[in-house]
Amino acid sequence: MDSQDRNRIVRLRELIRDVPNFPKPGIVFKDITPLLASPAALALSVEYLTQPFRHLHVDVVAGAESRGFIFGAAVAMQLSAGFVPIRKSGRLPAETHVEEYALEYGTDRVEIHRDSIEPGDRVVMVDDLLATGGTMAACCRLVQALGGEIVGVSVLIELGFLNGRSQLPGIPLHAILRYDSDAGTAGV
Amino acid sequence: MDSQDRNRIVRLRELIRDVPNFPKPGIVFKDITPLLASPAALALSVEYLTQPFRHLHVDVVAGAESRGFIFGAAVAMQLSAGFVPIRKSGRLPAETHVEEYALEYGTDRVEIHRDSIEPGDRVVMVDDLLATGGTMAACCRLVQALGGEIVGVSVLIELGFLNGRSQLPGIPLHAILRYDSDAGTAGV
Repeated sequence: MDSQDRNRIVRLRELIRDVPNFPKPGIVFKDITPLLASPAALALSVEYLTQPFRHLHVDVVAGAESRGFIFGAAVAMQLSAGFVPIRKSGRLPAETHVEEYALEYGTDRVEIHRDSIEPGDRVVMVDDLLATGGTMAACCRLVQALGGEIVGVSVLIELGFLNGRSQLPGIPLHAILRYDSDAGTAGV
Repeated sequence: MDSQDRNRIVRLRELIRDVPNFPKPGIVFKDITPLLASPAALALSVEYLTQPFRHLHVDVVAGAESRGFIFGAAVAMQLSAGFVPIRKSGRLPAETHVEEYALEYGTDRVEIHRDSIEPGDRVVMVDDLLATGGTMAACCRLVQALGGEIVGVSVLIELGFLNGRSQLPGIPLHAILRYDSDAGTAGV
């Protein structure tokens, strides 16, 4: 990474807005909407999300509802790949494979269409934010259960202090921005 | 539109899958996931969604949660515009403007960040599907309430028999694919 890259990434970081006490008291939400609203920052984010995979063969980019859809299809286009949406329970109309994952209290589920991944497909996972990594790990399991190979995970923001990386053993994780101190930060 | 365009659009239509009785009995769901999974069809869809606005000045592309996020950011990048997400109630962290719209039974709400549109901004609305037009009309009202000007609405699929177009008086509507007969079709 050269000094131009470093300056650009500082600029991206300035466009992430901290919103205290959202979605609940004590949490500082990382709001990416100012970044999305900037044409230059949007294009640059997609470029950096794509960069680690530009010279690799990628068949599919997958992203999870809802915010993973924003960057997912744009990155897929850059890589000349298809886009596969991963959704919450009951939203995909055809036959699905389901994975459960733990929440603070209880469990949640994500689903993928069974016919969306061919065995051997090389898949990049894209999201805006990696927090505890529970949802992302479940999404990786969905793809792997259908015979897909996870080439890597690409996120705009990694909340390093939540150690989501530990939920993705053996999977290359690329984050454009990393926050290493906890101001009570989390994503939704 | 020339014969090459017509052939391409036939090919896109072949990648829309009818799923009967989803999300409820009697409804035939238009499933776009096979189209998204095709790199060529994804790129072509974004190209056609963008085409009507390519030589116009556009500041912002807006798309509504969740499926409007898929094409929205990709079209924004093509137009060198920013992307503004419109979300369901309670999902956006900063100060919002809210619009209600009628459902078959009851009402629902969509929200936009108040600071996401500047007065005079020229805005293109993007979605995968226009059905009855209730949600899209509410999204247009959100943008207009903040002083934005709707340059046009661009959708992959228009269910013509539901006459959603009538909900968008004075707004140019561009649809890549139009279904004029009702096999009980609707979107979610």
